[in-house]
Amino acid sequence: MSRFVFRCPLRWSDMDAYGHVNNVVYLRYLEEARVAMFFEGARTAGVSTFEGELVVVRHEIDYRRPLVFGPEPIVVETWVTDIRNSSCSLRYEVRNDDLVYAEARSVLAAYDAKAGHARRLTDPERAWLEKFRDDAAPTG
Amino acid sequence: MSRFVFRCPLRWSDMDAYGHVNNVVYLRYLEEARVAMFFEGARTAGVSTFEGELVVVRHEIDYRRPLVFGPEPIVVETWVTDIRNSSCSLRYEVRNDDLVYAEARSVLAAYDAKAGHARRLTDPERAWLEKFRDDAAPTG
Amino acid sequence: MSRFVFRCPLRWSDMDAYGHVNNVVYLRYLEEARVAMFFEGARTAGVSTFEGELVVVRHEIDYRRPLVFGPEPIVVETWVTDIRNSSCSLRYEVRNDDLVYAEARSVLAAYDAKAGHARRLTDPERAWLEKFRDDAAPTG
Amino acid sequence: MSRFVFRCPLRWSDMDAYGHVNNVVYLRYLEEARVAMFFEGARTAGVSTFEGELVVVRHEIDYRRPLVFGPEPIVVETWVTDIRNSSCSLRYEVRNDDLVYAEARSVLAAYDAKAGHARRLTDPERAWLEKFRDDAAPTG
Repeated sequence: MSRFVFRCPLRWSDMDAYGHVNNVVYLRYLEEARVAMFFEGARTAGVSTFEGELVVVRHEIDYRRPLVFGPEPIVVETWVTDIRNSSCSLRYEVRNDDLVYAEARSVLAAYDAKAGHARRLTDPERAWLEKFRDDAAPTG
Repeated sequence: MSRFVFRCPLRWSDMDAYGHVNNVVYLRYLEEARVAMFFEGARTAGVSTFEGELVVVRHEIDYRRPLVFGPEPIVVETWVTDIRNSSCSLRYEVRNDDLVYAEARSVLAAYDAKAGHARRLTDPERAWLEKFRDDAAPTG
Repeated sequence: MSRFVFRCPLRWSDMDAYGHVNNVVYLRYLEEARVAMFFEGARTAGVSTFEGELVVVRHEIDYRRPLVFGPEPIVVETWVTDIRNSSCSLRYEVRNDDLVYAEARSVLAAYDAKAGHARRLTDPERAWLEKFRDDAAPTG
Repeated sequence: MSRFVFRCPLRWSDMDAYGHVNNVVYLRYLEEARVAMFFEGARTAGVSTFEGELVVVRHEIDYRRPLVFGPEPIVVETWVTDIRNSSCSLRYEVRNDDLVYAEARSVLAAYDAKAGHARRLTDPERAWLEKFRDDAAPTG
């Protein structure tokens, strides 16, 4: 019902030779948001099984406007749009107070690192994911 | 009619704490392939207007299998699937001789850097893009 | 008389395949600290001439202990140990409350970007640098 | 008696917002050279104990001139200047055919990853290191 909000600090080196944050780096921001959500956030809520057991299957990203380094963090809002047997789908908005810089979607699969193959999402994992389910379109 | 083939060297540091090439880094490989194709490659063919005037509008990427650092380059094959007034669509296969590691698609827009807005693709740009047009599905 | 203190957020991707923050990334932290000090910090104090006009001539870094990603920023303390006609020397400590993770030194040269050669430090630049002069050895 | 020569491909993204290869990235080139030398190179010579058991203790680097991305690799020459009980010292030259872009020195320590502490260099490791010992000053 709620979105996970991560304030992602920029680095000066995120800019490329054209003086804007490089398009590849936006996916780094999404990764940092997922780390905060699935590792720190889920662990705090008692779900510590995602770490090392989530694999990125797919990303889509639409760039809305150029971003320039500054001391203020960019906000990455993340929410869950689909929960399946062994995977889930996320949406993200990369934004500040006024503007949306990118929108993105990912599919993540649960993975049994010891066995080396996909695994089902556990009930506690699914319950935790449900807390961030939001089927609304992004606002940007 | 032909694909642009770029042999992209890996770096040991492309691997993350899980010991695989990080998902974000694959987009770096796509960037290196585009730099070789649209900067070096097009310039060699007499088209030097892409540099600084192409903007990434969208990426999609599907990860097929994990990749581990080694001294052999990975091959990025790139081809053109659509040419519009001011944008074009690309597909990529990230592969070695045997296996496909990822497939991806990008939309790029031509951009007039001085004027600060989108511009039409020029006739020489379109003619050059046509050489890499391939509507076939990826083989992977 | 005082050190410039920058709280540098880590990124999960700063870790390499050995599961520690990679040695190269420490220099990224030093860069972020210099950006905060020489760009944001100096500009706030009315000295805006460093941006684009400071070149790294030399780095030295001693690694004291391994660092693992976590949500807490690492502290980079920076101070000035020498001010010359056209260059200055910095020292840094990369630390948290308890431990020093690295010590480093840099030499930076003032550079006239338009003319393409070294330039003298201006009086306002020197006065600002003096505020961070500290000849004490690092505490670590 | 000989130097280890590694041809290090540049990436367009190695450049920063000033349009030159960023100072931090030079240390990435040194890392790639060490990976080629101590992992691939030593393994080929029958010494496979360095991987995961070498820790960077210290770097020094002097930047000689700015470097701009191009399709030609940069050459990193690496040689051994000191071999101690549990550590060794390296020197590097980052160069192309005509010019030296940086000179650097590192100290590496052998590390017993299982025991979690420093270890002595083995006799085969020392014999292999001797092959790259060169006390000559860099030529640049």
